[in-house]
Amino acid sequence: MDGTILIEGSARHVHVTQADLETLFGAGYALTVKRMLSQPGEFLSEEKLRVEGPRGAIDRVSILGPVRKATQAEISMTDARSLGLEAPVRESGDVAGSAPVKLIGPAGELSLPQGAIVAKRHIHLRPSDAQELGVTNRQLVSVKLPGERALTFHEVVVRVHENFMPAMHIDFDEMNAAGLSGETYGTIIR
Amino acid sequence: MDGTILIEGSARHVHVTQADLETLFGAGYALTVKRMLSQPGEFLSEEKLRVEGPRGAIDRVSILGPVRKATQAEISMTDARSLGLEAPVRESGDVAGSAPVKLIGPAGELSLPQGAIVAKRHIHLRPSDAQELGVTNRQLVSVKLPGERALTFHEVVVRVHENFMPAMHIDFDEMNAAGLSGETYGTIIR
Repeated sequence: MDGTILIEGSARHVHVTQADLETLFGAGYALTVKRMLSQPGEFLSEEKLRVEGPRGAIDRVSILGPVRKATQAEISMTDARSLGLEAPVRESGDVAGSAPVKLIGPAGELSLPQGAIVAKRHIHLRPSDAQELGVTNRQLVSVKLPGERALTFHEVVVRVHENFMPAMHIDFDEMNAAGLSGETYGTIIR
Repeated sequence: MDGTILIEGSARHVHVTQADLETLFGAGYALTVKRMLSQPGEFLSEEKLRVEGPRGAIDRVSILGPVRKATQAEISMTDARSLGLEAPVRESGDVAGSAPVKLIGPAGELSLPQGAIVAKRHIHLRPSDAQELGVTNRQLVSVKLPGERALTFHEVVVRVHENFMPAMHIDFDEMNAAGLSGETYGTIIR
């Protein structure tokens, strides 16, 4: 590994617990795999929700599977503004004290007291990648992206797990600010 | 000037020629000043347009005055995506070969063969500021912004004019990627 990392843009999405999935889609419901994602085991499901805030709503937001321990909506700051939510920048799963949000499915709806976050940009690495790069789990690094909107993201958190595929995940605001479309690689700067 | 620069976010907006203004709002029409902007003479007008692309439309887009030599719509990449436009990253006024776009006003509409751009991030400086910073008109610099979404924008074009107020202008995708809200200063890096 030479210090370059694949950049992947994450669209807005929802993660759900099995209990919340059943509230939204009906008792005994299971997610249907539409397409496997780059991180092993993770998938885009066929199921979609309406996400509502005090100022607006976004329809047809995808659920990513498998089901998780906490229900959360990962949205961009552009989305947060149009929904009227004060969503904090957080790592996925860190929902304590995040923004309240309403999820509406075909069989029911949920008014979550917390759960809307803006994803903190991060890099997935395997232990061998981390070792080669000289970085450790939870380290903050910078990543430089090329192009006519070239920029360097600071405050990028490294996450290391043996099941990960090496990739950096940013949201669509960040993709657009960097002028990215199609496959792009960044350079990790320690 | 110590190398710091005020960051201002530019919302989507339209500039119009007098002729196009009259097509959209009626013969002899003049823009009404709603609020003066930071750059001397520039103002937010009361007038708003509907901007249409092949995939969608955005209502109530503000016109910035005074009228100019070329009509153009400055939109974010998020907007370009929702409108279905392939808008290039350009400096304001550089509309040759940019994306076709439709503008709709209360008195008429215009199908522009070109005019939709994504604004290239830039810094306004007076000659004295430029001299102090050791930069020249049209130079590309980098600007580092602080915060939990800290980043460094590269490919920032410097524009020098004696009537300018020192400020860096970025669009809302860039504001969101940097996690900015409220008054923020960046640091110019040559």
